[in-house]
Amino acid sequence: MIGVKPYNIRLYRLAMQHSSVAAESDNVKGFKESNERLEYLGDAILGAVVAEYLFKKYPYKDEGFLTEVRSRIVNRESLNRLAFKIGLNKFVEYEGKRHSAQSHKSIYGDAMEAFLGAVYLDKGFKFSRTYIINNLLQQHYDIDEVVETNTNYKSLIIEWAQKNGHSVEFAISKPGGGKSNKQFKVNLVVDGEIMATGSGYSKKKAEQDAARKTCDILDVS
Amino acid sequence: MIGVKPYNIRLYRLAMQHSSVAAESDNVKGFKESNERLEYLGDAILGAVVAEYLFKKYPYKDEGFLTEVRSRIVNRESLNRLAFKIGLNKFVEYEGKRHSAQSHKSIYGDAMEAFLGAVYLDKGFKFSRTYIINNLLQQHYDIDEVVETNTNYKSLIIEWAQKNGHSVEFAISKPGGGKSNKQFKVNLVVDGEIMATGSGYSKKKAEQDAARKTCDILDVS
Repeated sequence: MIGVKPYNIRLYRLAMQHSSVAAESDNVKGFKESNERLEYLGDAILGAVVAEYLFKKYPYKDEGFLTEVRSRIVNRESLNRLAFKIGLNKFVEYEGKRHSAQSHKSIYGDAMEAFLGAVYLDKGFKFSRTYIINNLLQQHYDIDEVVETNTNYKSLIIEWAQKNGHSVEFAISKPGGGKSNKQFKVNLVVDGEIMATGSGYSKKKAEQDAARKTCDILDVS
Repeated sequence: MIGVKPYNIRLYRLAMQHSSVAAESDNVKGFKESNERLEYLGDAILGAVVAEYLFKKYPYKDEGFLTEVRSRIVNRESLNRLAFKIGLNKFVEYEGKRHSAQSHKSIYGDAMEAFLGAVYLDKGFKFSRTYIINNLLQQHYDIDEVVETNTNYKSLIIEWAQKNGHSVEFAISKPGGGKSNKQFKVNLVVDGEIMATGSGYSKKKAEQDAARKTCDILDVS
């Protein structure tokens, strides 16, 4: 999948191991080895590589733009799709794999990140960076389209609520300490309960962000 | 400051330039050049390096622990302090520097990140990684202390509220899609308004996170 032979195949195996099938560590009692630690690492590496890629691709766009485009590229849904595109889904192991695909929506995206964590540990930053840019970003994303496609998540949620008889409200939560926190924060409240908090450099963007997260949670699309 | 001669001094100068003193770009009308883009990049690089550092330092700790310790290392307050420790504060340029230190609390931490963005672009990942680990993490942080120091932010906020006649409430916001979102989310509500949302792998941790953010916003310590 990465085009070269791994040095340490164990890392890649671990990356495919969801916590539901984790075995207890031989070394430390009570510690279960799953792909969650690698996911944490891969998430950070992917974030850094995509950050630089967008920084250089868009030299005259501000950090609000860069942050938003990055979050569209690395969000759970997008990584889930990516895992299927590169065929990673076939290798992921979790309990009840054959049964409830629905409830395991994020498993593939998580494994995607864990896989990148494994690649980084096995092959280093330079290799990972090239792999992510050449094999993932350039082959499986149309970044200009990502930039332009403004899925209107707010409309999606409002439609969903009307159809299913729920109340929906977008409530601005204080942006906080003036200059120290430039982003707006908005809570999306469904039937009186906060479902998600969105942030962004405008009220509209924060609403969209909250709506996107809620679509993710409620599986609305 | 980084021990070697920069290739491109312009990057480091830009990193010290807060948006309040940004000049319009020669190339693109309406685009102001400040350190905000570099801050976005530096934040990502720092996040990745600290992620790996903790991953290797704590081989038997789960990702919840790693995420939490990382956020303590790279939070705004901690980066502000770091900027002073390495003397970066002397170089930061912003409007009204001599007057209102108070309202510019995050400027130094932001510049710290921008500086790391400049180091990365100028010297590459390997250099940045070594610099961050050897010169920043190992010299200016006592990681074991960071791990053990559990500032009780929740108590701090409750104390502050009692002293100043405010109401404080911690409200659990739905964790969302079951297995797809393992973290708890808690809103900290002051006088009926949400001040911050915290997340964590337990209710207690999410509360602490929300309280820490609120302490940051309200300048409570």
